[in-house]
Amino acid sequence: MWRDLAPIGRDRDSGGYRRFAWTGADADCRAWFEAQARARGLAYEVDRNGNQWAWLGDPNGTDAVVTGSHLDSVPDGGAFDGPLGVVSSFAALDELRRRGAEFDRPVAIANFGDEEGARFGLACAGSRLTAGQLSPGQAAELRDADGVSWTTAMERAGLDPEAIGPDPERLARIGAFVELHVEQGRALADTPHPVGVASAIWPHGRWRFDFHGEANHAGTTRLVDRRDPMLTYARTVLAARDHAERTGALATFGKIQVDPNGVNAIASLVRGWLDSRAADERTLDELVTSVERSAVEQGVTDGVKVAVTRESFTPVVEFTHDLRDRLAHRLGDERGPAPVLPTGAGHDAGILSAAVPTAMLFVRNPTGVSHSPAEHAAEDDCVAGVLALADVLEDLACR
Amino acid sequence: MWRDLAPIGRDRDSGGYRRFAWTGADADCRAWFEAQARARGLAYEVDRNGNQWAWLGDPNGTDAVVTGSHLDSVPDGGAFDGPLGVVSSFAALDELRRRGAEFDRPVAIANFGDEEGARFGLACAGSRLTAGQLSPGQAAELRDADGVSWTTAMERAGLDPEAIGPDPERLARIGAFVELHVEQGRALADTPHPVGVASAIWPHGRWRFDFHGEANHAGTTRLVDRRDPMLTYARTVLAARDHAERTGALATFGKIQVDPNGVNAIASLVRGWLDSRAADERTLDELVTSVERSAVEQGVTDGVKVAVTRESFTPVVEFTHDLRDRLAHRLGDERGPAPVLPTGAGHDAGILSAAVPTAMLFVRNPTGVSHSPAEHAAEDDCVAGVLALADVLEDLACR
Repeated sequence: MWRDLAPIGRDRDSGGYRRFAWTGADADCRAWFEAQARARGLAYEVDRNGNQWAWLGDPNGTDAVVTGSHLDSVPDGGAFDGPLGVVSSFAALDELRRRGAEFDRPVAIANFGDEEGARFGLACAGSRLTAGQLSPGQAAELRDADGVSWTTAMERAGLDPEAIGPDPERLARIGAFVELHVEQGRALADTPHPVGVASAIWPHGRWRFDFHGEANHAGTTRLVDRRDPMLTYARTVLAARDHAERTGALATFGKIQVDPNGVNAIASLVRGWLDSRAADERTLDELVTSVERSAVEQGVTDGVKVAVTRESFTPVVEFTHDLRDRLAHRLGDERGPAPVLPTGAGHDAGILSAAVPTAMLFVRNPTGVSHSPAEHAAEDDCVAGVLALADVLEDLACR
Repeated sequence: MWRDLAPIGRDRDSGGYRRFAWTGADADCRAWFEAQARARGLAYEVDRNGNQWAWLGDPNGTDAVVTGSHLDSVPDGGAFDGPLGVVSSFAALDELRRRGAEFDRPVAIANFGDEEGARFGLACAGSRLTAGQLSPGQAAELRDADGVSWTTAMERAGLDPEAIGPDPERLARIGAFVELHVEQGRALADTPHPVGVASAIWPHGRWRFDFHGEANHAGTTRLVDRRDPMLTYARTVLAARDHAERTGALATFGKIQVDPNGVNAIASLVRGWLDSRAADERTLDELVTSVERSAVEQGVTDGVKVAVTRESFTPVVEFTHDLRDRLAHRLGDERGPAPVLPTGAGHDAGILSAAVPTAMLFVRNPTGVSHSPAEHAAEDDCVAGVLALADVLEDLACR
């Protein structure tokens, strides 16, 4: 399966993946998903929000056990983030058939659309729409960097943007959702366990900082006459890092947009995005409030107007304790249950957990590197992940 | 003339101009230039480097008096930077014909290609090629942000990139070059003079700072495990400003490029361009050396590798003293000669001054704003500029 999927959307220079929602690379990934489903005789469908489903058993049955993940990527992302969960799902189903498992609940594999939000700036758009956490009106207002709307992009991908919206009937038919994902830190790396179980997802969000200055000639404008938003931006980047260090939180400015972005022009606008996460919402709130206050104060000194917009926010997600403990126990051995660990990363599982009993499995990542071509999981650990997912599905779906 | 030129390459949202070399907007500007030349019965030609010329008198004569400027713009530039010089040249010629001036030297109006360097990153490419300060091989290696080469862009514009190269015969036929330009600072704003004469152009250059870190997930990578180049960039921006303040120089980071530029990805590469200028080369050298040292040292702390590339450098340009004094005297009145002032901005006149007696006129800019849609010159001052240029051309070219 990896062989067919590996070349899709890979950038020749960086070696990273550029599989953005509703693009050609995304369409190729989706075609791959459909082919995998059909090759196994699974019932294939696309839901109203463009998420793909492959069903073993009755798609309209109840108490279904669903697994899967996503196939899109961040810009220059790695091969595992998302695809490992989808590939492992198909492989786990193959393993269960090999074992001669008899299912007494419908089982489905899902590929959720636009999980990374790389194109439209909102993560987990596909699962958010389904769970009613993103309204069709809000989705219609999303624009990519070229000004193409979500609606247009979906239409160009051959889907019907008129149909999108919450899908409570579908969610009501799901008895459990389990997402397998490559670990995005190094918590498992120092343990003998190739697979762990998620306890919680840190609250996290994205805030857009707009620094409005005044465009001017870099070669002729005296320093005292300038209103240079790059200075305010630079001080804000450092303030965010400083606050995060002091409070044990995470804060990152990884995306920037500058107008006019000319070498000899002082910027008129610097737009920087803050990604921040913390163990609890109060710490996160305090960080963002403090960074915003510092930016506004610095802006007064620099003659720069600062506006902050919260683009997304996901509260803390505690995965279903029963399901989490059942999985940890099922995957344990003579050393005890599998490790249970929190994560700072958002996932479709986090969105769905509001409506469905949800759990996650993490596969060990020796370097902890993520959202980069250097992201990795050892082949043995990937196999262990498939077997663990098979065990869990068997436990949940078979008599 | 302004009415036909004003809408070309204007961005509807910003109100600024986007007239980049060899694009459609540039072609429209060039067509406008040709039409103006032909409407006046001037001999029109395009030289081997794509610069446009409109001749009154023999294009192959000697001791020619040339005026003109450029029609391209920075991203979201203003209406005056460049076009004011070209429009005023045509208007000055009209004025001299109205006066019944008899020319005893050939007179030409030039439009130099790609003065701003907005597309290929090198300012004054057209005049540099002609003056032999940019070799055809170096030009062929220039690439725009989409990877399109100078060669391909020139070909697409219907020109012959094989023909480019130094043009000493052409320069040898020029006895004087005078460029009129909107002032890009506020030196004239506080005087009663609408027009001034340039003394010198500060030495200036562009340096590309590459900050190499490691792409990673913004939500799962511990702060201590990060190699985040945005932090090093931010500290470098502030160090450059600080050094410039202490030494009376100018330093600007106005252009940035980030890979992968995703909200939830720590950057792998931040590329920032430093534009710096100072009254003398030693001050400029010390600034760049100091900012580079500070970036490299900070990079060691941040786990970020820093590489600095000088992309362009123009030494101090002292305009021809005889010509400068002659112009200042000619434009003087009962209060004395016209103001003589230096500038931090590069110009085609600065490039040509190495080969040809060269002077510049500046037209007052009340706000000093430049490289922005807010750039301005009052109508009365523009008329004064045309009359001053006509006086200067009459003084130089008529019996």
